[in-house]
Amino acid sequence: MNNSKNVGNYIFGKGAIKELPKLLEAKRENGYILYFIDHYFQNRDLEIELKDGDEVFYVDTTDEPKTEDIDRFRDRVLELQKGIPNAIVSIGGGATLDTGKAVSNLLTNGGKAEDYQGWDLVKLAGVYKIGVPTVSGTGAEASRTCVMTNSKSGLKLGMNSDFTIYDQLILDPSLTKSVPKEQYFYTGMDTYIHCIESLNGRYRNAIGDAYSQQAIELVREVFHSEDMMSDENREKMMVASYLGGCAIANSFVGVVHPFSAGLSVVLGTHHCIGNCITMNAMEEFYPKEYLEFLEMAEKQGIEVPKGITKDLDDEVYQKLYNSTVIHSKPLSNALGDDFEQILDFKKVKEIFQKM
Amino acid sequence: MNNSKNVGNYIFGKGAIKELPKLLEAKRENGYILYFIDHYFQNRDLEIELKDGDEVFYVDTTDEPKTEDIDRFRDRVLELQKGIPNAIVSIGGGATLDTGKAVSNLLTNGGKAEDYQGWDLVKLAGVYKIGVPTVSGTGAEASRTCVMTNSKSGLKLGMNSDFTIYDQLILDPSLTKSVPKEQYFYTGMDTYIHCIESLNGRYRNAIGDAYSQQAIELVREVFHSEDMMSDENREKMMVASYLGGCAIANSFVGVVHPFSAGLSVVLGTHHCIGNCITMNAMEEFYPKEYLEFLEMAEKQGIEVPKGITKDLDDEVYQKLYNSTVIHSKPLSNALGDDFEQILDFKKVKEIFQKM
Repeated sequence: MNNSKNVGNYIFGKGAIKELPKLLEAKRENGYILYFIDHYFQNRDLEIELKDGDEVFYVDTTDEPKTEDIDRFRDRVLELQKGIPNAIVSIGGGATLDTGKAVSNLLTNGGKAEDYQGWDLVKLAGVYKIGVPTVSGTGAEASRTCVMTNSKSGLKLGMNSDFTIYDQLILDPSLTKSVPKEQYFYTGMDTYIHCIESLNGRYRNAIGDAYSQQAIELVREVFHSEDMMSDENREKMMVASYLGGCAIANSFVGVVHPFSAGLSVVLGTHHCIGNCITMNAMEEFYPKEYLEFLEMAEKQGIEVPKGITKDLDDEVYQKLYNSTVIHSKPLSNALGDDFEQILDFKKVKEIFQKM
Repeated sequence: MNNSKNVGNYIFGKGAIKELPKLLEAKRENGYILYFIDHYFQNRDLEIELKDGDEVFYVDTTDEPKTEDIDRFRDRVLELQKGIPNAIVSIGGGATLDTGKAVSNLLTNGGKAEDYQGWDLVKLAGVYKIGVPTVSGTGAEASRTCVMTNSKSGLKLGMNSDFTIYDQLILDPSLTKSVPKEQYFYTGMDTYIHCIESLNGRYRNAIGDAYSQQAIELVREVFHSEDMMSDENREKMMVASYLGGCAIANSFVGVVHPFSAGLSVVLGTHHCIGNCITMNAMEEFYPKEYLEFLEMAEKQGIEVPKGITKDLDDEVYQKLYNSTVIHSKPLSNALGDDFEQILDFKKVKEIFQKM
């Protein structure tokens, strides 16, 4: 049975970021704070109050995190010759939140990032860490994983561990105000998608269902409304993301995420837009949700890219196939143990061709 | 801003209680486990595997916990001359769960239980504790308080502290199978009531609202159904209770709880039935919810006691008045800062007379 770990603490509300200095006070003695901040904020004022000795590493989120990126950040910490930080603060979207988690684990456990890709391979608690999401939807703020691509193996897999979970969250909806509307939509849809995958799967329980249902309800309210980025809707979306993260801790995803992972590994497509591109080809597996997805995208004036897989040769389709069907847990959750009979190469290729 | 602390871990599912020995394994070294078990289970098989040195204290839940009860349990631990236990396991309803929390705090902080009645008076982490609810609804499994009556002051107040929160929960719906149906209904209604109070209050936020809405949704599904105690419904009610507990961590209750507290302090009425008795007099404050409450009680064949306050003299009404209006936070949440102008003695007496 699953022993679900919660995030330690969370502060929710407009302006919550101002609580950060108070939270860090107790962590400053004989040490420093390390910030991972999405490069988007490099020349923007986040109103973070840095103190002497604090270090800021900007995270280039042009591409999703690779295991080498994590190793490199670890090396940069060691090069400082200041020891391990007393706390890590990650400010950004899913990629930045995941980077903070992974480096936190790596600094105390030693070795390389790839050593911990899998389930419960992390042996020691990481550095105390605070997560501050600046875009809502991935659920990374609540989840026990931090997804990284291993360039050597091509594997996209996280450090699934209780130690990966944030000790403290600051959920400040004012931070999502400047997110471009496409990104806001794609990222928010991640919550909708992993929750509908959970609810349509075989491995369910009443607590996962409850989190999924409430998260979906909130996403619906936001994406069926006139202004998805109103103050109230950004609050709802931030809550939906957190609850969606709690939901996946109690269940599995389904057909969408494996295909999206295929796009990501082979074509470098980012996770959230990859999910939406995949949804365009999901009528067969999630017919009602497919229609609602189209409706919400239309309502919000979002044109999900199409045609990204149309001119590929079979060698690339083979790679896409391989990096999709490797995700046996979510696929068997959605389609049963015989999922490979349904998703043979021909079928998988057909599905990718619809994207 | 509120920094909400979560329960550390939770295991949810039928038969989850069987995970207890594994959870305790790491806690056994050089020490013992102390169990607080609702006296209802004294001659029933809970399938708890006790080991040499473990101690079981049965909690008489005929009356709700008093501060003296907590002090007495502390004395009993000291009389064992075995030191402080390595872990406390509480198995029972709200009263038993609260007893485990309070003794855990008292054993490490010293002094008397009444010293910690209030907000953030507990200074040190308590003994590691596991909560195992056997009836669903109070939210005690998720909340940061443990309510006790102080016989001297007549005050009913908890140790509101992050240290009061359980480190680990076992949420096993098979444990609620033998709850008498009246108690099942009254206790489940506690979730409904504190969530509707939150949603009708002034102090709200999007995350508290989300927890409340989902908890209410689940209670509705259960109490409008044909068999509120089916396996599926007991699962839903256990989830509703946990989410309702998370909701009150982000909001305040309203008019019902202060009146129910009055009944409890003056007449010894238990919390959950007291809430339901109070609901019968709440048409004015919660008109829609009042009607739904009556509908659900009728559907489940529950007759909520009436007439318990009809033959009281004004001296008793004065006591009821005093122990109701003292709860200024929830009352101002519901009625504004001028709540005492609305709830003068005459009005409060009228409301109690409707019960």
